[in-house]
Amino acid sequence: MERSDLSVTVPGDVCAPGGFRAAGIHCGIKQDRTDLALLYSERPETSAAALFTTNRVRAAPVRYSQKAVAGGRARAIVVNSGNANACTGRQGMEDTREMASLTARALSVPVPEVLVASTGIIGEPLPMDAIRRGIPRAADELQASGDAAAEAILTTDRYPKTASISLDIEGRPVTIGGMAKGAGMIHPKMATTLGFLTTDAPVGAGALRDALRVAVDRSFNRITVDGETSTNDAVFVLANGAAGGPGITRGDELEAFTEALAAVAERLARMVPRDGEGATKLVRIRVEGAGDDAQARRCADRVANSLLVKTALRGEDPNWGRIMAAVGDAGIELTEEATDIWIGDVHLVRGGIGVPENLERARDRLREENLELRIVLDVGSGAASVWTCDLGEEYVRINTEYN
Amino acid sequence: MERSDLSVTVPGDVCAPGGFRAAGIHCGIKQDRTDLALLYSERPETSAAALFTTNRVRAAPVRYSQKAVAGGRARAIVVNSGNANACTGRQGMEDTREMASLTARALSVPVPEVLVASTGIIGEPLPMDAIRRGIPRAADELQASGDAAAEAILTTDRYPKTASISLDIEGRPVTIGGMAKGAGMIHPKMATTLGFLTTDAPVGAGALRDALRVAVDRSFNRITVDGETSTNDAVFVLANGAAGGPGITRGDELEAFTEALAAVAERLARMVPRDGEGATKLVRIRVEGAGDDAQARRCADRVANSLLVKTALRGEDPNWGRIMAAVGDAGIELTEEATDIWIGDVHLVRGGIGVPENLERARDRLREENLELRIVLDVGSGAASVWTCDLGEEYVRINTEYN
Repeated sequence: MERSDLSVTVPGDVCAPGGFRAAGIHCGIKQDRTDLALLYSERPETSAAALFTTNRVRAAPVRYSQKAVAGGRARAIVVNSGNANACTGRQGMEDTREMASLTARALSVPVPEVLVASTGIIGEPLPMDAIRRGIPRAADELQASGDAAAEAILTTDRYPKTASISLDIEGRPVTIGGMAKGAGMIHPKMATTLGFLTTDAPVGAGALRDALRVAVDRSFNRITVDGETSTNDAVFVLANGAAGGPGITRGDELEAFTEALAAVAERLARMVPRDGEGATKLVRIRVEGAGDDAQARRCADRVANSLLVKTALRGEDPNWGRIMAAVGDAGIELTEEATDIWIGDVHLVRGGIGVPENLERARDRLREENLELRIVLDVGSGAASVWTCDLGEEYVRINTEYN
Repeated sequence: MERSDLSVTVPGDVCAPGGFRAAGIHCGIKQDRTDLALLYSERPETSAAALFTTNRVRAAPVRYSQKAVAGGRARAIVVNSGNANACTGRQGMEDTREMASLTARALSVPVPEVLVASTGIIGEPLPMDAIRRGIPRAADELQASGDAAAEAILTTDRYPKTASISLDIEGRPVTIGGMAKGAGMIHPKMATTLGFLTTDAPVGAGALRDALRVAVDRSFNRITVDGETSTNDAVFVLANGAAGGPGITRGDELEAFTEALAAVAERLARMVPRDGEGATKLVRIRVEGAGDDAQARRCADRVANSLLVKTALRGEDPNWGRIMAAVGDAGIELTEEATDIWIGDVHLVRGGIGVPENLERARDRLREENLELRIVLDVGSGAASVWTCDLGEEYVRINTEYN
């Protein structure tokens, strides 16, 4: 999962690739933060692909964009924050359609080439008056920087999440940009947040879809804050070909592109638990020696979502018993007496039993903001990693008071 | 699941059935609360059955008692709180064996007829000096009341959990008693807490095991506080036959006994989320109209474990969007537009959309300490209920600071 040979720039810019413009404005859904973003490709033939939440309750914009993206083309994405437009019935779908057609008109692009995303509270009707006024205004404010857009898509996030990379793919200079939002309702099931990726590489819709699937599986599908899967999750990618040259369709070229896309997606995704509601630490849970990769993944997910592990992380308490209990509850093959746990370079559990002389050093490691918790089983060679965060009283406060 | 025709007495007494005695003392594992309990049957031929955690990491007393109870007989159970004796390796098993043999000696019963249970912190060696001194002292203090024992098995619980019932089974007066502990690390997988049931009914080990399985499936397997499954969960039942008469082996008699056992277990189990760490409300999640009972159960479990639902319950906020999102994430068949949600008698969601005019009344219901959240799907006739609690900052505080 590490792509250490690929250096991703953070902060980055969703408009870093040629031919993309974006805007972020305050239209009036939220009280005093920006709440409406546009992402626009200047080039007429822009490929598009997207992956959406697995939740059976899906917001109107998710259902709409799922159909729209099937055409494989998109010139623009309109995004509002502050309101999820989920569980809003027929009106919700009409509002989504209107958002698409208002955007199409404002940008002079075909309606079927506009995608829509919403995030925020569930079950409230969209304030369409504000959005109707906002979309043309946002179109007027399109600029070559994605900074305002990256702000406008946020909800409870503390900071914008952007990344980009420029690299040579078989001698052709290519750029990939991205922005994401997400702090709560984050769980490693497709796709767990809103993510927007752009590239000037010439990639057709089919290859783009394949690349996105790999990228999301390595990134947005491997993060968790609270085990919740939202009704609105989606990750989009637009490829406008501004870099020129023949299409990237397969082989080494496509593989190199996929790796770069995954690297950007991974950097973006890791910012989400890092900004988890009330979180102070980004924790990578790495499982090795499992029966197979799927079991390793299940084990990593279970530990990453354990409330008792997450509160212990918050307390900077090397309570390895809670980790062992979560590992044991993952429903995978294991031998308790052959289970080892490391925090960073500190051997915390050896053969299923704590190593008392290392507790103090483990406590030191737990004070760090970036941690790795490594669980080593002796069953097979399966391995997997996911990212999680600690859980503090602030998470509960935010979600008790959020309305 | 309701056994409204059976009136369970609360508080009850694990010594309510004839021929049982119990003790609870402070031996020195915890600082200032009692921490060692004995449960003893005066009658030589006492049947025993037990169910244990599904966690693959199992405490020494769980492994020990799992083997010991296979004989179908037990005269005594020794229980310590404050230390789980889990992840303690070979020493942990030796300590458990010593607890069993010290208890056997103190009570003059065969070693194989002593069961052991431990609860508390994982990964610390048992303070055996304290336990060695404590067991004979506890044996000296055996009494006809289970009150001291019900106190001594607690950890983060705020109050003891006891229940009993007396009834006529086909003309024969029979009594069932019970005590339980549990406030955190509670999830509806076998068996989720420590529970101890006693009866003077003459029930052989085989029938007792069958009855216990039904009772636990309706009770301890249907509660959740935090989605965690412990290394030490166990529910035990002892039947000493003091009520006299021929054995209850099958048919109406066994069914009546099973119903009564389940009623006591259910009352005990419900006290656990009621006493959930930091919890203020006991919430029954009822799902109806699912494809089958298993799907209903999966849906109820998902909602019962949703952090966002639980924090909304704490905020007394009728945030039905979070409930819809959790229902959608349960991985079951459903039609969003045909989903209804009720809080008590208040219709909160009709056809997948909120009922705004009922929000205020829903808010009123949410102020109550005992709630029912009913989710009605239109897929089939599957139904299930589980109990959960709200989640507040106290849960996080308790588990951040617990050592």
